[in-house]
Amino acid sequence: MNNNPIEFWFDFTSPYSYLMAEKIDDLAAKHGRKVKWHPVLLGAVFKTTGAVPLTQVPLKGEYAVRDFARSARYLDVPYRQPSKFPLATLAVSRAYYWLHDRDCTMARNFARAAFRAYFAEDRDISDPTVVVQLAAAQGANAEELAAALGTQELKDRLKRECDAALARGMFGAPYVIIDDEPFWGADRLPQIEKWLETGGF
Amino acid sequence: MNNNPIEFWFDFTSPYSYLMAEKIDDLAAKHGRKVKWHPVLLGAVFKTTGAVPLTQVPLKGEYAVRDFARSARYLDVPYRQPSKFPLATLAVSRAYYWLHDRDCTMARNFARAAFRAYFAEDRDISDPTVVVQLAAAQGANAEELAAALGTQELKDRLKRECDAALARGMFGAPYVIIDDEPFWGADRLPQIEKWLETGGF
Repeated sequence: MNNNPIEFWFDFTSPYSYLMAEKIDDLAAKHGRKVKWHPVLLGAVFKTTGAVPLTQVPLKGEYAVRDFARSARYLDVPYRQPSKFPLATLAVSRAYYWLHDRDCTMARNFARAAFRAYFAEDRDISDPTVVVQLAAAQGANAEELAAALGTQELKDRLKRECDAALARGMFGAPYVIIDDEPFWGADRLPQIEKWLETGGF
Repeated sequence: MNNNPIEFWFDFTSPYSYLMAEKIDDLAAKHGRKVKWHPVLLGAVFKTTGAVPLTQVPLKGEYAVRDFARSARYLDVPYRQPSKFPLATLAVSRAYYWLHDRDCTMARNFARAAFRAYFAEDRDISDPTVVVQLAAAQGANAEELAAALGTQELKDRLKRECDAALARGMFGAPYVIIDDEPFWGADRLPQIEKWLETGGF
């Protein structure tokens, strides 16, 4: 057993990432682990793998919408299919890293609030104004964040995270890595739990 | 609660179908249900959905091979990545339906044996000779089956099953339907169990 942090790679527009986000910290804490959150743009990842958004695949798309809600009920997480789906997560992801470099607890709370805003309250988190409001509600300086969102520095920061995700083998979200073992999907929570309990199986 | 049979749609070359095949009958029996098995050709389904075999997708393919074995360990099912993968399942699927129309118990035992032969013993179940041997080991008439494999009647029978799978919304394997609720993937076993326990959630 060890206490290396768990890596959690995700996209804010991914329903299964939201479900993982609601569960992974508590599960990790039960086993004395911390979790490092890494929002990325799944679109950048899909360019490499040739994948398309789930809901655009014939038959699979209809199933997916049903499965999002059912999986949320199964995990006892509030869920409402967003009216705008999927959406662009550039602003919300950049905001996350801007906050993270200032106050990592605030960034975590912002990420949770952004997921809930999108998947439980149907707010449009692709809108930079909404993103800044959500960050301000966590105590961030709204004007500074709004000004930072368009800077090259923050664009580059997010780009580096997307490149790192690909380098770590990410092809879909959520993508969780524990001691170099990758787990894809919220449906891998039982395997993650067993892995943490047993130190690998 | 009711006791409608569960539908289990699968392809013999799908590792997650094998895992489901090892679990679904016992799980169903615990809740007073029977399972109807339907082997189909996932290639025919993928023509409609535009999907490609999992192991051919960059990054995802490498993950998948790792996940097949880990998921088998998690479910305590013997597994060895076949040296020929994926393979053509025409002959084994046709043989299943030929057997099923004569003796449904023999067909079920044959299907289990074929899955084990492929995923635990690395036998080439795309080879009609191997298929006939596996059927004969269950008590089938080898000569009659060998002669039947190329008949139009049996080809049409399998074709109808593939069409039916698409009509039921199948886009991947395994695909399990309980009271019109579809579940895709061996990783939906916990949700299937809860569904059977609660009559829907």
